[in-house]
Amino acid sequence: MVEPVGNHYVVARPVYSENLFNEEHEKLHRYHKTFWDHLKRYFSCSPQKAKKIVLHLFPVISWLPAYRFREWILSDISSGINTGLVAVLQGLAFALLVNVPPGYGLYAAFFPILVYFIFGTSRHISVGPFPVLSLMVGGAVVRLVPDESAGNSTSTNTSAIDAERVMVAASVTFLSGIFQLLLGIFRFGFIVIYLSQPLISGFTTAAAIHVLVSQLKFMFQLNVPGFNKPFGIIYTLESVFSQITKTNIADLVTSLVVLVVVFIVKEINERYKAKLPAPIPIELLVTVLAALISYFVKFEEKFNVAVIGKLQEGFQAPVAPDIGVFQKCVVDSISIAIVGFAVAFSVAKVYSVKHDYPIDGNQELIAFGLGNIVGGSFKGFASSTALSRSGVQESTGGKTQIAGIISAIIVLIVILAIGFLLAPLQKSVLASLALGNLKGMLMQFKEIVILWKKDKCDCVIWVVTFLAAVFLGLDIGLATAVAFQLLTVVIRSQIPSCTVLANVGRSNIYRNRKDFTDIYEPEGVKIFKCSSPIFFANIEFFRQKLITAVGFNPQRILRKRNKALRKIRKMLKKGELQVTPKGMICVVNHTQESDEELDNNSIEELDQPTNMTDLPIQINWGADLPLGITVPRVDIHSIILDFSSVSFLDFSAMRVLQKTLKEFVRIDIDVYITGAPEGFLDKLERSAFFDEEIKTSMLFLTIHDAVLHILMKKDVASSPKLKLSEEKGSGKDYVVIPTNGLRSREHTIPTETKF
Amino acid sequence: MVEPVGNHYVVARPVYSENLFNEEHEKLHRYHKTFWDHLKRYFSCSPQKAKKIVLHLFPVISWLPAYRFREWILSDISSGINTGLVAVLQGLAFALLVNVPPGYGLYAAFFPILVYFIFGTSRHISVGPFPVLSLMVGGAVVRLVPDESAGNSTSTNTSAIDAERVMVAASVTFLSGIFQLLLGIFRFGFIVIYLSQPLISGFTTAAAIHVLVSQLKFMFQLNVPGFNKPFGIIYTLESVFSQITKTNIADLVTSLVVLVVVFIVKEINERYKAKLPAPIPIELLVTVLAALISYFVKFEEKFNVAVIGKLQEGFQAPVAPDIGVFQKCVVDSISIAIVGFAVAFSVAKVYSVKHDYPIDGNQELIAFGLGNIVGGSFKGFASSTALSRSGVQESTGGKTQIAGIISAIIVLIVILAIGFLLAPLQKSVLASLALGNLKGMLMQFKEIVILWKKDKCDCVIWVVTFLAAVFLGLDIGLATAVAFQLLTVVIRSQIPSCTVLANVGRSNIYRNRKDFTDIYEPEGVKIFKCSSPIFFANIEFFRQKLITAVGFNPQRILRKRNKALRKIRKMLKKGELQVTPKGMICVVNHTQESDEELDNNSIEELDQPTNMTDLPIQINWGADLPLGITVPRVDIHSIILDFSSVSFLDFSAMRVLQKTLKEFVRIDIDVYITGAPEGFLDKLERSAFFDEEIKTSMLFLTIHDAVLHILMKKDVASSPKLKLSEEKGSGKDYVVIPTNGLRSREHTIPTETKF
Repeated sequence: MVEPVGNHYVVARPVYSENLFNEEHEKLHRYHKTFWDHLKRYFSCSPQKAKKIVLHLFPVISWLPAYRFREWILSDISSGINTGLVAVLQGLAFALLVNVPPGYGLYAAFFPILVYFIFGTSRHISVGPFPVLSLMVGGAVVRLVPDESAGNSTSTNTSAIDAERVMVAASVTFLSGIFQLLLGIFRFGFIVIYLSQPLISGFTTAAAIHVLVSQLKFMFQLNVPGFNKPFGIIYTLESVFSQITKTNIADLVTSLVVLVVVFIVKEINERYKAKLPAPIPIELLVTVLAALISYFVKFEEKFNVAVIGKLQEGFQAPVAPDIGVFQKCVVDSISIAIVGFAVAFSVAKVYSVKHDYPIDGNQELIAFGLGNIVGGSFKGFASSTALSRSGVQESTGGKTQIAGIISAIIVLIVILAIGFLLAPLQKSVLASLALGNLKGMLMQFKEIVILWKKDKCDCVIWVVTFLAAVFLGLDIGLATAVAFQLLTVVIRSQIPSCTVLANVGRSNIYRNRKDFTDIYEPEGVKIFKCSSPIFFANIEFFRQKLITAVGFNPQRILRKRNKALRKIRKMLKKGELQVTPKGMICVVNHTQESDEELDNNSIEELDQPTNMTDLPIQINWGADLPLGITVPRVDIHSIILDFSSVSFLDFSAMRVLQKTLKEFVRIDIDVYITGAPEGFLDKLERSAFFDEEIKTSMLFLTIHDAVLHILMKKDVASSPKLKLSEEKGSGKDYVVIPTNGLRSREHTIPTETKF
Repeated sequence: MVEPVGNHYVVARPVYSENLFNEEHEKLHRYHKTFWDHLKRYFSCSPQKAKKIVLHLFPVISWLPAYRFREWILSDISSGINTGLVAVLQGLAFALLVNVPPGYGLYAAFFPILVYFIFGTSRHISVGPFPVLSLMVGGAVVRLVPDESAGNSTSTNTSAIDAERVMVAASVTFLSGIFQLLLGIFRFGFIVIYLSQPLISGFTTAAAIHVLVSQLKFMFQLNVPGFNKPFGIIYTLESVFSQITKTNIADLVTSLVVLVVVFIVKEINERYKAKLPAPIPIELLVTVLAALISYFVKFEEKFNVAVIGKLQEGFQAPVAPDIGVFQKCVVDSISIAIVGFAVAFSVAKVYSVKHDYPIDGNQELIAFGLGNIVGGSFKGFASSTALSRSGVQESTGGKTQIAGIISAIIVLIVILAIGFLLAPLQKSVLASLALGNLKGMLMQFKEIVILWKKDKCDCVIWVVTFLAAVFLGLDIGLATAVAFQLLTVVIRSQIPSCTVLANVGRSNIYRNRKDFTDIYEPEGVKIFKCSSPIFFANIEFFRQKLITAVGFNPQRILRKRNKALRKIRKMLKKGELQVTPKGMICVVNHTQESDEELDNNSIEELDQPTNMTDLPIQINWGADLPLGITVPRVDIHSIILDFSSVSFLDFSAMRVLQKTLKEFVRIDIDVYITGAPEGFLDKLERSAFFDEEIKTSMLFLTIHDAVLHILMKKDVASSPKLKLSEEKGSGKDYVVIPTNGLRSREHTIPTETKF
């Protein structure tokens, strides 16, 4: 029967209730896997599976053999050199935020890259120190190893304090690495699915703001302490601007010149991408030039600018972390682990979307965890990815982590050999180079406008994330943003748009009756659609909307009817009412009794179904009742609940729904549920939803099936002579209605309805 | 046309795409209220509105005139006396938990009731001290006014310390009252919708456990300090059992006797409810008896039992709270405000469900807030409702808050006159009376089994709530439980059950193809249904499921095709391929070239639509390709996405969906979206979802419309002679298929399909 007939939709089949349909169409018994089956499968073992696990654990095995050497190596080398240089510069700068000697920053920029090369899944991020993470480690360091008491600055044992601080930083890093590794092993990388596009965008923009503010002190060369707490950014700015008069003009000028040059050259690189053989390595040029000028003009002596100074050379032997520090820094380590991962993953996701390759949250956690464990052992500090440096790596043409390895080699060269050349470089130059790469992240502000137009809710998430991350700090800000986002999901699921439907176009199409002119509502039938899951938080709302839609509260009607019945019973007993073939007649002018006596019954009794078996006559609630008894008229006889968009129903909701349906059934209104999702009937049966009042026969396949069933039922009821068999399997010959003039606009609505 | 035809579903109408349907059926333009309209309406003013607000703010105006005096007054008085007595006993007992002299507990049991009478919406709860809340206030009190340093217990100024403690308790109470009032005024009572049935049940059961444990020290008469912190219950039990040898046997025996007697008599009351004229006021009898026995037998002297002792008589003048305490107790006050409200509301909700009347969260907040403000001013401490006392009030027949007023009068009498009579009463008797009323709450453990059968998820919520509230304390436990519950909603919405549908029974019914034997899947068509909202957290999952369902990754196919095209172009140029009318022929035995050279193109290019305009022949991807070129075959031509259960789609999801659909369109697969919810098309258009590749014409009303459209399209394509006009308004006469033999089981599946 599924054949095109011109351009027409022609269907003729029995009216299906859920029960009838299931009788006629054999249902397969399917075995649904239980939790244990999944667990068993997860822990099963096979050679294929082992291979897959190994490949998964060491992504380098997959991508390195597929490396397009001729095509990519040049870009990777160019990118690696640029990135390596920035990594060196940032390593030095961020070490200052950690409150350890600059040289240790180079270790943080070296070891994690090697580990990430083997274990990482992103091809474009540059692993290494990240300012906000450095600030966080610095917070723990200053807390555990404070400066000598401010008064006597005798600088007795600065080197001892430094050594202690390096040890604390390394231990915190090691511990956060362990947390990341554990999260990765236990596959908690799924937390990243809660990082939506607007959230990541808002968060990275906020991170860019943090980097910008953290670099200000180097641009102005001011002495600003680290504030690792909510609203820290305000304290930092306050500290900067309260000292603004102490600005070193030479540093400021250098910064601005470098910033402008870098910005312009990067713009040129972008615009003439096609024409240039390779992007101009501006970071490299600026650094070399700045170091040379500073050295020969003797900036340090003449203008008292801050320079990097002598670096620690070579490597130090790995050390075991300090267990004592572990105990004091559990909370710091957890937030460092999560923020580090969140930042790295959000940046990695940006590039993975841009270049379209998959990244894996769990594997990233393992990679960063191992990277931090190794880095911490070699006295480095916590690494993630700096937004600016990853920007350099990607924009200068980095294709794979080969660029990362090249950058590590550059760092290695600086550590081992040419570190002394950087000694005269101004710190303000480092700061400007870092800032020059933030443009892309800061341009994300434009997204606010785009998001506002497309989805207000997503826009609010962006703004909340941004504000929370800027003002509360990246750790608390991220938690706030994720919580807020989850709440928006709950609220969105929770506000059901309940609508009353009507037939549009006289066929099997039902739409919101407010939207169309040409609608047909079968008399006495309300079709009510709820388009959201129904659960504890919105079931009362659903009930209220349903009561509003039908126009009366079924419980109130039921109680009024039961009260009326009791009154009638009493009047019959007293002889005030007499039953005639035409109905009840009030023979005595009924004295207005006080209601109180009548109400002498428990509320529970009033909620029982109306029982008229003891009365000599059935009472028609639609007709006029004897004098002194009023019961509100009910002008509908059937309600159809369209559940096709109700993706789940929880137990709280089911209880209230059952109660509500029962109330309707008890005032003689037929309730039908249509379009119930797969497995809905089973779930309701398991929950003892059905009983002698609420029956499974109320479930119909579609709204139209239910409407046809209702029309037919009323038809039969109103003309008992025309008895159509309602049983299945009876009518094999279908009366087909003349089909011309079917189009709704061409023909008028039948004015007389059948009941 | 909507008329019953026997018991048959007969429909004949045009195949409707969303566009065609909207053209044929005029849509009304509706004005949707904006946020500002709602705001304006909210702040509008009218006499009706003012009256409504007043009635709402003072519920007593509504219910007091409707009080059924004759009917209810006796039960209310009986209940009030019982409750009042328990309130006196509990007030005394809980004052000890707050670490203030017992008399102040009577104030806490008196003032809030008066306020609640006017402002409260629950008819059955007994307002007054609550043990856990008392413990929380006590925690703040002990923190701010610690005992004299443990060593020198010279008891120099015990009364001064007591006065200070009373002041702290009063101030904390006042501040939490302010928080409750503010929450109520700003209508934050909506937080109660997050208290689902299982959550409330688990929480109140946990509260009962807390009460039970807190009373143990009185039953054994041990000296147990208050532990107001996570796992406090364990510390309390540890403290109790480590001292168990110091138990006062007289107290223990008294407690057990009282407990057994109360339990049995309550059981009798319950079982012979109908036969007894009124429930036996067992609490009253036991208290009087115990006090008399204790007095005459001189328990205190003989067995050293703990008795209440002399009470403070009369009232104290109201005082202003201590602002200094406010600053130190902000956090305590907030948690007291929320826990107090949560407990009271959850108990009130239990009774409102049982007796079926509405309660209002915001109004309850206002009532408790004012109650605590007044109570705090008169040196009382934080009040809420004790589960046990509300149980007494309701089970002894309390109908309205008149019972509350009566109980307040009892408390008043004790305060003013007969307090001295209670002096010889044992504290252990108080404890046993409180425990005797916990039975109902503890019986809720049975719900675990019921919930497990009905809804595993709700059962887990119950257990998590219970464990969190027991072990973490009621405040943190409640927060944990609510957060956990929200997460379950997100997770439930997030796991979409994606299914592949097929036609069942050859009419317009589409069901999961795995569930039925008798199914028909149109060749080359996949019907994919997602039954949950699609948003950031599950869009990748959706994409993955879709790719699994169709059996291939469209992006991969597209890239392979583009690579193949490039190869063909190159071979044509070299003359290795020649075009004949039959297709392309490979004239040169193609040397296996390395792929690398061919791959010298950016990934972006490979994702563009296949462009064959420059080729002399159209390539049929389904047919065999020239030697050396392989592209995976695609065996479907159309995908139908059924979105009838997708209640919302966020912006992140829209972007991924758009990208995915584009990939399908670019490999020549037609994608159709059916059953889209109201307003879906508008939203997509606003989000720039549609372009020259993804068109609005892809939206169809139902799956069947889309299937018919596809079948017809393929029909026309395969037999170009038979040109059916597809335009609207053409075919007015419908070919009606012979309708006998429609039933699916009776006729076989047509073996030859038309394309």
